[in-house]
Amino acid sequence: MSSSDLLLSLSQKAIHLLQEDADKIEKLIEVQMKNLTTRQCPLYEEVLDTQMYGLSREIDFAIRAELISEAAGKMILIKLERNLAELYEALSSK
Amino acid sequence: MSSSDLLLSLSQKAIHLLQEDADKIEKLIEVQMKNLTTRQCPLYEEVLDTQMYGLSREIDFAIRAELISEAAGKMILIKLERNLAELYEALSSK
Repeated sequence: MSSSDLLLSLSQKAIHLLQEDADKIEKLIEVQMKNLTTRQCPLYEEVLDTQMYGLSREIDFAIRAELISEAAGKMILIKLERNLAELYEALSSK
Repeated sequence: MSSSDLLLSLSQKAIHLLQEDADKIEKLIEVQMKNLTTRQCPLYEEVLDTQMYGLSREIDFAIRAELISEAAGKMILIKLERNLAELYEALSSK
């Protein structure tokens, strides 16, 4: 494998792993959105915040390790943050 | 650069970044150890726990991204955890 192929493969793997972790948080947000009218688990916000923090540290590391671009890292976080903001808005207007 | 050189360089960079983050936590532990007899900041434990969690997520990601070995990742964490345990012991026997 040439070094540019290797870099591409490592970079794609990194993006894939980060997206997987982002998808897990996405699922957590969806579940809580569905439970909005039924019941609200008070620990949910804390779990989501912790998971978001963990993911942001992973993304920050991947950028510093030059595996992914800053733009790619930001894109993953921005989408999640938007969904999270919607959830918190829905929770507060309940 | 050959692909094995590239992999080595990325891997060394990853280890270096993780060690830097570990050193920051190490400093936090040292500061709190020194302050043991004077005063204790109640937020210190929380900050240390959060930082340890962040570092463990970075290390876990670096292992999954095949940048570092599991053993290398564990070594960074184990040393810190030992120092953290000493701090907590010192705090509780105060």
